[in-house]
Parts: sequence; C-alpha cells; structure tokens
Amino acid sequence: MTLIERARKGSSTPEAEQVARAEGVTVESVLSGLVDGTIVIPSNPLHHSLQPRGIGKGLRTKVNANIGTSSDSFDVNTELRKLNVAVECGADALMDLSTGGDIGAIRRVLLPACTVPFGTVPIYQATVQAIESQGSIVGLTPDDLFGAVEAHAKDGVDFMTIHCGVTASAIERLRSQGRLTNIVSRGGAFLTGWILHNERENPFYEYFDRLLELARTYDFALSLGDGLRPGSIVDASDRAQFQELIVLGELVQRARAADVQVFVEGPGHVPMDQIVANVQMQKTLCQGAPFYVLGPLVTDIGAGYDHITGAIGGAIAAGAGADFLCYVTPSEHLSLPDEDDVRDGVIASMIAAHAADIVKGVPGALEWDKKMSKARKDLDWAAQADLALVPELSRKGHAKTPTSERACSMCGKYCAMAIVEQYLGGVSVKP
Amino acid sequence: MTLIERARKGSSTPEAEQVARAEGVTVESVLSGLVDGTIVIPSNPLHHSLQPRGIGKGLRTKVNANIGTSSDSFDVNTELRKLNVAVECGADALMDLSTGGDIGAIRRVLLPACTVPFGTVPIYQATVQAIESQGSIVGLTPDDLFGAVEAHAKDGVDFMTIHCGVTASAIERLRSQGRLTNIVSRGGAFLTGWILHNERENPFYEYFDRLLELARTYDFALSLGDGLRPGSIVDASDRAQFQELIVLGELVQRARAADVQVFVEGPGHVPMDQIVANVQMQKTLCQGAPFYVLGPLVTDIGAGYDHITGAIGGAIAAGAGADFLCYVTPSEHLSLPDEDDVRDGVIASMIAAHAADIVKGVPGALEWDKKMSKARKDLDWAAQADLALVPELSRKGHAKTPTSERACSMCGKYCAMAIVEQYLGGVSVKP
Repeated sequence: MTLIERARKGSSTPEAEQVARAEGVTVESVLSGLVDGTIVIPSNPLHHSLQPRGIGKGLRTKVNANIGTSSDSFDVNTELRKLNVAVECGADALMDLSTGGDIGAIRRVLLPACTVPFGTVPIYQATVQAIESQGSIVGLTPDDLFGAVEAHAKDGVDFMTIHCGVTASAIERLRSQGRLTNIVSRGGAFLTGWILHNERENPFYEYFDRLLELARTYDFALSLGDGLRPGSIVDASDRAQFQELIVLGELVQRARAADVQVFVEGPGHVPMDQIVANVQMQKTLCQGAPFYVLGPLVTDIGAGYDHITGAIGGAIAAGAGADFLCYVTPSEHLSLPDEDDVRDGVIASMIAAHAADIVKGVPGALEWDKKMSKARKDLDWAAQADLALVPELSRKGHAKTPTSERACSMCGKYCAMAIVEQYLGGVSVKP
Repeated sequence: MTLIERARKGSSTPEAEQVARAEGVTVESVLSGLVDGTIVIPSNPLHHSLQPRGIGKGLRTKVNANIGTSSDSFDVNTELRKLNVAVECGADALMDLSTGGDIGAIRRVLLPACTVPFGTVPIYQATVQAIESQGSIVGLTPDDLFGAVEAHAKDGVDFMTIHCGVTASAIERLRSQGRLTNIVSRGGAFLTGWILHNERENPFYEYFDRLLELARTYDFALSLGDGLRPGSIVDASDRAQFQELIVLGELVQRARAADVQVFVEGPGHVPMDQIVANVQMQKTLCQGAPFYVLGPLVTDIGAGYDHITGAIGGAIAAGAGADFLCYVTPSEHLSLPDEDDVRDGVIASMIAAHAADIVKGVPGALEWDKKMSKARKDLDWAAQADLALVPELSRKGHAKTPTSERACSMCGKYCAMAIVEQYLGGVSVKP
C-alpha cells in the first residue's frame, strides 16, 4: 500500500506522526492533507536513513539543495561534503543532479548518507549514458527512460523530477511564439531534442500510466518538472509555460486517482509583479498540489549573487502560497557550486522560507522572531546567537569589531535600546 | 535661490540636466518632479565634489550606504576605505553616521572625498558632545540642536535626517500601546529621552520653521526620520509608527511651501504582507514625497545575513513605489560593518533596486536583463561578465570550477542552451 492508501484507510502512519510532531500540528491534519493531495511526504520505503518531512499546506515552507557532479567535476567525496553542509545548515531535502562520473555509484553513496528526502532527475542518467554510448540522446527508447526511473526507485529515491508536460504541442507553442532563451531546463532540453528528432510524443506523457505504476510499486513521489520554465525575465508567463502547467494540472489529477503523491515544479526567471499570479494559477490549475519553485529569480543580472535574486523571488512566492523552495547558489549561471556556495544558498532560501512562514501564519514562526527581539531588547547576546538562523555566524559577527559596552560596536555607548530603557523602562511589552 | 525655486522659474538647472542625462529621461520631467516634490536632488552647493543624483518618481531606485565610526572604532581611514568601496560598488548616496572620535573632523575628511550625495544625522554629534561634556543628553538646548544642523550644512552635507515626527503625543501613543522593542532609532531614542526628561515638545517639531530657514539658506534636503520605526516584526504598523507618519505628512507640506526639498524615511522591521500597505500609506499621507526605506527587514532572525532580509523587503517596497533603499549589511544587529560588509550590503540592495525597476518600468531596466539573457543564450562569457552587476565577481565565479566546454561547469557537456540550439535553432527571438 502507498502512503496515501494507508492515510486514506484512516490509520495513522509513522511518516505522518513524525511530520505532525516536527511541525506542531495534529496528525489528523497531516493525514487529511495527504489524502486530499495538499501535503506530500516523499518517503521511499527503501530510503532507510530518512527522517520524513512534509511539504504543503499548513506546514513550514521547505528548502531543497541541489548537489551533484558534472562532466567537469565528478568527485563523490566533494558531493558528500556538500550534502553534509546542506543538511547541517538546515536543508529539508536534497537533489542529486549528477551528470558526471559513475552516476549510479555516486547516488548509491549519497542516498544512504542523506537523512532528508532525496530527489533525482532520472532522465539525466539515461541521457548521459545514451550520449556516451551512442553519441546522441535521440536513440533512447521509452524502455530506457522507464528503466532509469525504476533503477532510481530501487535505490530508494524519495522523489523524482519527471518532465511529463514537455509535450509536442507545448513545444509547438514555444516555437510559434518565440523566446529569448528557449529552454533552460536540462530535462526539458533532452526531451525536446528527442521529441523533435523522433517526431513522437514525450514518452513520460504518452505512457504516464506506466510511470504511475512504478510510483505506486515503489511509493516514490512525483515532482512534475517544468521543462519549459522561463530562463529570462522577458520569457516569463508565456504561452509555452502555461501550456505545460495546464498539462501538469491534468496529470496531478491522474496521479491522485492512482494514489501517487505528486507535486509541481515552477519557474524560473520571473519579474516580481508576476510571481503571485504564477502561484495562484498553479494552485487552481493543479488543484492545490504543493508548489516547488526554482527561485524564482527576479532579475537576470545577479550572477555571483543569485542566492539573493532567488531569495527575493522565493520569499514572495512562498508568501503567496508556494510550499517548497529550491535554493539558488551564488554560483548559479557561472559554475558548479562549492561548499561555501551550498551554505550560502541554503541559508538565503531558509530566510526566504521563514519570512514567508511569518505571513502564512505557520505555527511557531512569529514566536521565533518575538524571542529574538526580546533577547535583542535585553542586550542578551548569548540568547541572540542561540536564536539566530546561524548561531555560529551571529557569534562571529558580534565579535568581529569588539565592543567594551553591553551593546554592540555599531552604536557602542549610544545604543538606542539602552538609552530608551532609561526613559521608557516602564513601557509594557506586547503580549 | 533654492534648487526648487530655480526649477519653478522654469529655467533649467545643471543638477536637473545631469540627472536627466544619467536616467535617460527629459529635463522637463525632472524639473516638474522637483517642483511638485516627487523628485529630490540632494545637492548642497558647498559639496563641490558632488555628481548629483535624483531620487523619486520615474527614476531608477537609489541605494544608500551607511558608514561612520562608533565609540568602539573611530579610525577615519577605515571609514574612507568603506566610502570608496561603497561608491565603487555603485551606491548612489552615502550617510556618515559617526558617533566616535572627532565627528566633525571625520566628516570634513569624508565629504570632500564623496562624489555622491552625502547625508548625516546632526543630532548624533550634538548628543555625543552633550554626553561627553555633561554626562547626559537632557541638557541640550534647542540652540545646540540647530547649531549642529548649521555646522553640517556649512560643511556641505546634502541631506540630513531629522526626527521631527517624534512628538510628545506620538511617544504617548507608543507608551499607552506597548511595544516589544520600544525605539530602535538612535535619533528617536535621544529625542525621546530629551522630551520625557524635560517635559517639552521635540524642538525640531516645535521650531520646524527654524529648520526650514536653515534648509533654505544652505539648500540641503530634509530627510524626515522615522524615529519610531518598528524594531521587530510584531511592532510593525502600529499606532506609534503611523502617528509619526501622519506628522511627517504635515511637515512635507510645510517644507514644500518653503521651497525646501524633502523626503521621508520609513521602516524598519516589517512582515512581507504589510510592506505594500506601508508604501501606499506613505505615498498618500506624504503627498507623493520620495520614500526612503531602511530595509525593511522581513524577519528578526537573520543576523549575519540581514543584507538578504533587507533585500527581500527592499525589493517588495521599491516594487510598490519606494524610491530610495538604505542598505543593510551582514553586520546589522551584530557590529560595525567592515569593508566586506559594505560591499555585500550595497550589492544586495542594488539587486533589490534593479528587480523593482523592472516592474516599475524604469527606462533601461528590462533592456539590461534582455542583453544578459542574450549573452547567456549565446554562451558569450565575456559579455555575461561585462553585463553582470559585479563583473569581477562573475568572472571569478565562472573560473572557480573550470570547464573544458563552451558552457559552464554546472552542466558541462550537457548544457540545455547548447542542446536546444541543435534542435530549436530556428526559433525566433522575441522583440
């Protein structure tokens, strides 16, 4: 039985209990979210080291970190270190996007070391193998593609990005409309090449039931990929993007009918004033399925600081209802991220997620800020560091320019908090 | 004659011409913005090294960097280096918030070295001198306060933050309501102490005409400070904050009637879902005066990464109409910023400002992103670096993990851009 089937039978499940406990919500609300599809708990029974996380309505906004090799850098130990940095910083999920080295072997090292939900994009491995053996992606058969999915499932992958919505008609819409940066999703690009060369429909769309059967058998979650996401601000919210989203909404319905957990990926590069509409459209077209956004990046010109362009977009998206933020690192658009990039990316996304949780009214979010502000008013530096998102960084920052005062070196003797205390000491604290 | 008087006479002014040229707008639109008060060009005639910048409606969103000494760190050369870093990175204005060392001497070193508008908070110097000589701020006389303003004006300061709206009745509203973090503005704290101890009205409010007379004489711009800005998320948008804003709206009207350039400062710590309303209220209450926001920070728990909490809030505020962003550095709440903090703070705010300029429709903003995306599609790395907000950082990032491909090391051989080009090469580029 899949997790949804177990939840529907009304019996509690260890996964739901663990999520409820971590989030401070009732087990019943988690179970009913699983049944109506507004919550997913990606949890492949073969991922034995997993501590499950819930993603979706009423829960804390989650953060995913992408790691993985490329043809230029394929040392598994480097990726293992990035994995550990990401999880230590607080990432709620990890995706292995490896395209270099022995991809299967790398996954089988990383996954058991990972305590959070582990995601992959199986078409990467299928394609890389096809290019290496045949020189091209176009000879791949549907069996090759579904075989890659099954291999990942057998290794214990909790969720897989599958670009089912890159259909022949969506590509035709893209072609007839024109775009500045065509397609920037690797999976989308692979499938587009395959579809156009073979003059056939996307196998993941044509044989979607076969995918559902695999997802049921191994009980992994489907992350419906946005292969046609905009790669530049001017391409955002166009016909190709929304054509794909409409298809994904249809597939959400079919996945739910098969008791398969499903969520939906979203853009990409999006100007600030289109983000809320994008979230609202996903929520209606995909019937409240959790929304996993890749950024969104609010400008194209931030290379070197794209964790910030992504945090701005991610905060706005999550505040409007997005449930799951894929981090962006300072290396985005430039190179494979290193450990420092991973750290900066995770922290920036966690800030965005928490800022959104305050306005979403997620249990405990505002209370955290209140405790910090109370510690700040009390000039209690130990408590401030303990409450900071990154305690070590807070301690280091405070010590950087030392002070001889109770306050910090920014204001030294002239701290507003300290001065006002003398004159307004009796002001009551808000409840 | 003040700049506004010259603009009203219909004659062009060198300041307006320079702004129009830099922004790609007509001189007439700048002049009419000066006359109706929606644009300010802080430009003290005694600041000889100044290259004027315009702040306000229809213009690029501007970024201010705060530097300055404290009682814990007061080396003028350190501050000079921070000034240079800020201006090199692209800051549009600089505020010297020094409260340590010989404050006047420091200002007279920094200001001539500064090519962008230079701002100060004269009450800092007045208060520090009073505390050092009398042990307390309460003995300051109105003459001391206005004397400090005049001294700064004579040194060529282009804009001054004056907390005119911290009135006895606004403080009473704060007291009767209660707050978690009372007052976090240093100027607001100094004045509150003075008002409560002396049981007198804020001299900058009571004798506002005297301030206007100084501003007219020396032709500096007034930045009406928000001394009661919220210092924590739960204190945002309360009665004390809006009571002060109402007073500031009144003073905007009086400043305009006196042909004095004026803009208004805003919060502070504000949850995301209250930012747009805050901007809209400022615009109506203050009759379209340029809005200078300090962040806003969208959560209290980001110490060490507050350039990001500030960039999220700043982008949303500017997208909703705020005109001028005060940067926040990673050192905020922890210590005096160093040069690296200044750089990170300026860049984060510039990203926020540019993301907002795209949705504001500021001339040239979207075109910049289009050029970058075109260079990205062409895999033209030299052009991408040249177009990046920080070219050096972009080059360094691209070289960090070297690649043997035309693409970058993130995808190596499997770059979506390169793959799609093979199959979708003929797709037309959007106009």
